[in-house]
Amino acid sequence: MQLALAEAEAAAAAGEVPVGAVLVDGHSGEVLAAAGNRIESDFDATAHAELLAIRAASQKRASPRLNDCDLYVTLEPCPMCAQAISLARIRRLYFGATDAKGGGVENGPRIFSQSSCHHRPEVYGGLDESRAGELLKRFFAARR
Amino acid sequence: MQLALAEAEAAAAAGEVPVGAVLVDGHSGEVLAAAGNRIESDFDATAHAELLAIRAASQKRASPRLNDCDLYVTLEPCPMCAQAISLARIRRLYFGATDAKGGGVENGPRIFSQSSCHHRPEVYGGLDESRAGELLKRFFAARR
Repeated sequence: MQLALAEAEAAAAAGEVPVGAVLVDGHSGEVLAAAGNRIESDFDATAHAELLAIRAASQKRASPRLNDCDLYVTLEPCPMCAQAISLARIRRLYFGATDAKGGGVENGPRIFSQSSCHHRPEVYGGLDESRAGELLKRFFAARR
Repeated sequence: MQLALAEAEAAAAAGEVPVGAVLVDGHSGEVLAAAGNRIESDFDATAHAELLAIRAASQKRASPRLNDCDLYVTLEPCPMCAQAISLARIRRLYFGATDAKGGGVENGPRIFSQSSCHHRPEVYGGLDESRAGELLKRFFAARR
């Protein structure tokens, strides 16, 4: 989660909403991919940290399935990223701050609770919540 | 929609679930991007036709926002792609077959009906439904 927070801080410095994500091999602990949001720099509304980390880790593994991999992300994933986590069959999701407005795990559509969701990761929320939340608050305060 | 169906057929020939998507400039009618699923060939569980088309069109426009663009897709988008359509601020969504099991627009989490959904495209479903559905049925029948 420290590495995910560092990615979020780097994203903020680049003018992106500060969210960071890290994908780890659940057995060896090896970091497979780390990314921050790149929406503006990549010209891509789907360039959320989670999606970028999933894509990079999948390419590293040469497989679209990331069974036995765990994702650390500083903010509760949105519905797009939650569904991507399910599609990639990620084992565990650890996230920082909850997102009452845009989240899709404990808020909004609660993607993993849908009967149409075929793979549900184990979910652990609220890790380092205050640090992840402070980063976002500072970012948006500075832009107002 | 004919071009989207052709992309779906090409995807099937490559061993991918046959779904195709085309992004069009809503004013000029110019095709900005066309893609079929590339999950297996790209080693990427998020490589759905819609996401690939959104990414390619955004890069072409050098903007993460695709206001005034319309998406044609042969199958009802899943929750990941529905949220991506919202994030990219696509104007209209035209889709072929509905997807009772995996869809996220008229089924499952009904992404655009969530109060947390900040942009809702106009939605027109059931276009060329039988052709899009037949393609999928044939593909899965051949694999059983």
